[in-house]
Amino acid sequence: MLRYTRRLNVCKQLSTGTVRPLLRAISATNLRLHSSTPHPTTSSISNQLLFTSTNHLKAKSLDDVHSYQLLQDLGFLTQSQAGITHWHPLGLKVLRKLENIIRNRMDQIGFEEFELSSISSKALWSQTGRWGNTELFKISNDENLCLAPTHEEEITKLIKDAQLNHKNLPVLTYQITRKYRYEKRPRMGLLRGREFVMKDAYSFDVDYPAAMKTYDNVNKAYLNIFKNDLKLPFEVAKADSGDIGGSMSHEWHFVNDKGEDLLYKCNSCGDVSNVEKASSYPDLDAEGFEFAKAANVKYLLTKDNETLVSCYYPTDREFNVSSLTEYIDDLDLKSLNLPLEEVLARFQSTDTDVILKKFIRVMDLRINDQTDLPDFPITMFQKNNFSMITDLSIVEPVEGEICIECEEGQLESMKAIEVGHTFYLGKKYSEAMSAKFVNKDNKPEIFDMGCYGIGVSRIIGAIAEITKDSEGFRWPSVISPYDFSLVVAPKVEESLVEKFKSNVNGLTFNHFENDKVLFGNKIRLAKMIGTPLVVILGKNWPLVEIEVRGKRWVDADTPEYKQLQEIKGEQWQWTTEIKGNVEKHYVHKDHFRDVVQSLLKNL
Amino acid sequence: MLRYTRRLNVCKQLSTGTVRPLLRAISATNLRLHSSTPHPTTSSISNQLLFTSTNHLKAKSLDDVHSYQLLQDLGFLTQSQAGITHWHPLGLKVLRKLENIIRNRMDQIGFEEFELSSISSKALWSQTGRWGNTELFKISNDENLCLAPTHEEEITKLIKDAQLNHKNLPVLTYQITRKYRYEKRPRMGLLRGREFVMKDAYSFDVDYPAAMKTYDNVNKAYLNIFKNDLKLPFEVAKADSGDIGGSMSHEWHFVNDKGEDLLYKCNSCGDVSNVEKASSYPDLDAEGFEFAKAANVKYLLTKDNETLVSCYYPTDREFNVSSLTEYIDDLDLKSLNLPLEEVLARFQSTDTDVILKKFIRVMDLRINDQTDLPDFPITMFQKNNFSMITDLSIVEPVEGEICIECEEGQLESMKAIEVGHTFYLGKKYSEAMSAKFVNKDNKPEIFDMGCYGIGVSRIIGAIAEITKDSEGFRWPSVISPYDFSLVVAPKVEESLVEKFKSNVNGLTFNHFENDKVLFGNKIRLAKMIGTPLVVILGKNWPLVEIEVRGKRWVDADTPEYKQLQEIKGEQWQWTTEIKGNVEKHYVHKDHFRDVVQSLLKNL
Repeated sequence: MLRYTRRLNVCKQLSTGTVRPLLRAISATNLRLHSSTPHPTTSSISNQLLFTSTNHLKAKSLDDVHSYQLLQDLGFLTQSQAGITHWHPLGLKVLRKLENIIRNRMDQIGFEEFELSSISSKALWSQTGRWGNTELFKISNDENLCLAPTHEEEITKLIKDAQLNHKNLPVLTYQITRKYRYEKRPRMGLLRGREFVMKDAYSFDVDYPAAMKTYDNVNKAYLNIFKNDLKLPFEVAKADSGDIGGSMSHEWHFVNDKGEDLLYKCNSCGDVSNVEKASSYPDLDAEGFEFAKAANVKYLLTKDNETLVSCYYPTDREFNVSSLTEYIDDLDLKSLNLPLEEVLARFQSTDTDVILKKFIRVMDLRINDQTDLPDFPITMFQKNNFSMITDLSIVEPVEGEICIECEEGQLESMKAIEVGHTFYLGKKYSEAMSAKFVNKDNKPEIFDMGCYGIGVSRIIGAIAEITKDSEGFRWPSVISPYDFSLVVAPKVEESLVEKFKSNVNGLTFNHFENDKVLFGNKIRLAKMIGTPLVVILGKNWPLVEIEVRGKRWVDADTPEYKQLQEIKGEQWQWTTEIKGNVEKHYVHKDHFRDVVQSLLKNL
Repeated sequence: MLRYTRRLNVCKQLSTGTVRPLLRAISATNLRLHSSTPHPTTSSISNQLLFTSTNHLKAKSLDDVHSYQLLQDLGFLTQSQAGITHWHPLGLKVLRKLENIIRNRMDQIGFEEFELSSISSKALWSQTGRWGNTELFKISNDENLCLAPTHEEEITKLIKDAQLNHKNLPVLTYQITRKYRYEKRPRMGLLRGREFVMKDAYSFDVDYPAAMKTYDNVNKAYLNIFKNDLKLPFEVAKADSGDIGGSMSHEWHFVNDKGEDLLYKCNSCGDVSNVEKASSYPDLDAEGFEFAKAANVKYLLTKDNETLVSCYYPTDREFNVSSLTEYIDDLDLKSLNLPLEEVLARFQSTDTDVILKKFIRVMDLRINDQTDLPDFPITMFQKNNFSMITDLSIVEPVEGEICIECEEGQLESMKAIEVGHTFYLGKKYSEAMSAKFVNKDNKPEIFDMGCYGIGVSRIIGAIAEITKDSEGFRWPSVISPYDFSLVVAPKVEESLVEKFKSNVNGLTFNHFENDKVLFGNKIRLAKMIGTPLVVILGKNWPLVEIEVRGKRWVDADTPEYKQLQEIKGEQWQWTTEIKGNVEKHYVHKDHFRDVVQSLLKNL
C-alpha cells in the first residue's frame, strides 16, 4: 500500500538548498533501543583526568603546591572561575561521604532534613534588615530576587506559616545545600568561594531554657562529627556573633598554622576564644612586667550619641572592644571606624547641650598613672558627667598573659580554620518577622531560635590543606574517596589480580591500571591522592604489601590494629615494618581484608 | 589567686548604657557539651506540618484540588514564591528516591557523576551564542555571571581542558543538580519552575557511530527508568531539537490528559512523534475524503535570502514546517514569523536582481488543482526559477490520517507531559568551543557529543498530577516516601503496636500518632498522602488489614502477590477482598512483612 513512494522521485528540479532524501533522514532517527552490542564500559574518568596530569611526578616535594591546586591536578575538582568549583567524580565521593557523616549526626539529635530553594526574596530580607548586604548575590532579571547565603529568613517564614503550637515544638530543621556569597575577592579555593556547600540548621523553641537544650544538643552532634568521625585536631572557641547576630555563639575550628583565624587557649582551664572575643590579664607578678609608657586612644559612642567612650590602651598592643561590649551593651560599634571629627560631630550636634552629655574613660589594665595619655579632644564638660573604668582588658591577648576565665593559666595562641559555627539567636529573627507559636496559655508567642552552620565544602578544603604533606594528601578514612589504592607490580598475572579484587568485599578501592605509567609512579600517584592505605601486589605474593598513608591524629600509641595483631599476627603472617615516617604491613592475602579493616579504624 | 575579683565591684558610677555583670555573661556562654539530659526527640515534623492542614478532610473529593496545592497542604513541600519550591522532609524522601533510581541507571551504563557549579559565565555562553537567551538568569553584582539552566558550555570546556586522546573516549558524564530558568510566568508548580532539579548527562565520543552507540545506551537506561522502575504509561517521541540544537532528539513523555504536549502515535507500527515533528498522509481512499476547497499560505526564506518558499495548505488545518525542513535544510525558520512585507523586503533588497532569484511553491498533499489559492505577492520572476513540491504533508496531523512511517496505520493523538529528552548534538557545541581530542592519527579532532536530560522535580510534579484521584496521591512504590502508612484503631494497646513495629524490618512506614485526629480521618489522611499501602491495626487482630492504595499500571491481571497467595494464602490466613476500586488484604501479623513485600512489587 505504498501510496506515497512517488515522493522518492521528487524535487529533482530544486536548485537551491541541500535536499536530502526524506526516508534516510527519518530512518536515522529511529530509536535503537534493542541494539545487542553493549557499549564498552570505560575505565574511570577520574583516572583518565588524573593521568592527564602527571606533572607532579617529577617534583621532589609537593610542599610548594597549594592544596586546592593539587585537588585540581589530581582530578578531584576544577575551578571554573574565581570562587567557583566543579566537582568531579573523585571529589564528589569525598563530598558525599562528609555530607552523610553530618546528616547522620543531625538525624541522631532529631533534626529533620529540608532543601530550601537557593532563590530568596527582597520581601523577606528587608524584614530583617539584611537586604543591603553587599555580599548578597542579586538577580538582574528581577530585582526582588537574591541567592541565599544562609536561610534564617526563609525557614522562619516557613515555620511561621505552619501555625504551630507549643506541643509541636521544638521544630528542628537542617539542610545541606549550595549557598552563595558575593565575595569580591574569592580566594583559597574551597575556603572562601562564591558558591559553597553548607549544612545549615535552624531550631525553633518555646523559651530560653528549651533553646539552650537544643543549642547543647547541636554542639554535642558537632563534637561527634569533629572528635569521633573526622578526628583531626580541633578547638571550640567562644566567638563573636558577627552579622548573624544573637547573644552567644561558638566557632568550631581545625587547628592549623595556615589558618586565617587566631585563637587563644588557656593552658590550665582549656578555655578557648577567637581573638575577636578573647581577653587576658597582664601577669603583674611576672619578672620584668611594666605598665605601659604611652597609650593610644579609640573613641566611640553609644547608639543614642549621648555618651562618648574614650578607650586608652598601650601603644604596642591591638585594641579589642569585646570586653567593653560586655559592660556597655548599647555601644555603636560602627562609630569605632569613623574619623574623630565625625564622632565628635555626632556627639555635639544634637539639640541637647553638650554640657549635659556623658563621658566614660576606659583605661586598659596595663595603664597606670605614669602612662602618657593623648590629649582629650573636648574641653567643655561637667566633671559630674565623667566616669572611669580602670579594670578592663581592652586589647588583644598576647601569649603568656593570664586567662580571664580561670585567672590561673596562661594563654597560648594558635592559628585555626573555622569550619563550623553555632549561634543562639534568641528572638532576633523571629521578632523581626513576627514568627509566633501558640503557647500553653493559648497566646501567640515569639519563637526562641538557634542556627548552626558547618562549611561542608570548606571542611574538604581545610582537610586537604591540613593533611597535605610533601607527597600529597592524607584523607581521614571516613571521607577518603576509597579505602585503599591498588597498585600492581609489572608482570603480576591478571587472573591473580582479579581473584584478589573479588575478595575485598565491603572495601572500596581505586585500581591504577594505566599501562603507560611506571610502577613506581603509580605508587607515587596513589600516595598523592591520599587514600589511607596504598596496597601493592607484587614480588612478595601471596603476601600483600600495605603502606599506611593516612595519619593517626588520636590514639597514636595504641592503634586498634595492634590488639588484633597480637592475637592473629603469626597465624596471618602479618608483620609490620616502620622506617622513619613510613609504616608498612605485610599480610597473607587471605587475611588482607581483616587487616585493612583494623588499620582503617584509627586512620 | 583571684587577683581580679575587684572587677565585680566597679562601674557603679556608670549612668548610661545597660551594665551587665561580666561573669554572668561569660558563664552563660560556656558550652554544655556534657549535659546528661538528652533532648527529647520530637515526633516527625512532616507529621506536624501535615496535621496543621486537615482542611481537606471534610471535602468529599479532591478532584478540584491541584496536585501542587495538595503537595503543599500535606507537607511535602512549600511554594515560597512563584516558580520556587522548598522541599520538606516528606517531599525530600520522594526526591531522593527518584534521584537514586536515575543515578543507578546512569551508573549502569558507565556514566560518571559530577556536580558542576550553578554559576556560569558570559565568556562561555557567548562562544555558543546563547548569552542572549532571555530565560537566562543573570547576576546584578557581576554582569559576566549567569545561573546555568543546562551545562553544555561548562562541561565542554572542562572536557576540552582535560586534553584527552581517543583512548580516553567516550567520556560519559552526568549530574543531578538544581537548574535555573527565568520563566516569565512560572506555573503549574513543579512542572514549570524557575528553579528545578534536573539530571543532565553529556557524552563525548570519537565519531558518529560511537556517539550513536552512546545515544542508544542512554535511551536504554531511560527505558529502564520509565518502564521497569516507575512503570507509569509513557511514550518515546521523535522530537524537535529546539534551542539545544543537534540533528536528532527524542522526548520521553508520561501520557496524561492534562499534559501540555500533543503526541501522535500510529496504531499499526507504534511510531510516536511530538506534534512539532509529526506528519501524516490524508487517507485518499477514505469515504468522504475531499481535497481542500481553499488554501492558506506561509512564506519563508532560505538563510541566504536567495529563495522564497511559499507553502500552501488547507485553511482548516494548522501549518507544520517540520517535513519541509527535512527537504530543504537551509531554511531560515525565523522568517516564518515575519510579516510578509519584511520577508519580501529581505528577498528583494539584496544587490542581485530579483529576476535571478528562486522560488519554490510547496503544495500540501491535501491540495489539488481545484483548490482556491491566495494571490502570489510578486509578479516579476523568471519561470525557469520556479519549482514546485507537491507531495509533502505540511500540516499538523489529525486523528485518523495515515502514518508517514509505515504508511499503513492510522494516527491517534494523546496529551502528554514531557519529562525527559535525549539529544544527539554532533559537533554543535564542541565546534563552537573548539573542543578537541587527539585522534588515532595523532591529529586534533572535534568531539561528537550528545546530551540527555531528565526533569527530576518535574517527574515528581507529573506523577503527583497523574496519580492523584479524588482521595489523594498514589505514589509508585519505588518513590513513595514510605512503603506504608500505619493507622492504629483507638484502644489498641500500645505494647502491641510497638511489637508490631519492631517486626517490619526493611520496610519504611509513617505512623499517624496524633491523638486529636479521629481514626477515620487518619485513614483518609494516610490515603491522601498516597503510600502504596495503608495498614490498619484494629479489631481483626492478630489479622492485619492492608488496603491497597497504589495503582498497578502494568501486569494488572497477574500481580506477583497472587502467586505467593496461591502457595501460602491458607497457612498465613491471607485473604483478599475487592469491592469496587478498593482492594484489601487481611493477613496474620506474623506474615505481614512477606505479604507487603509481594504486594509492593507491582505497585
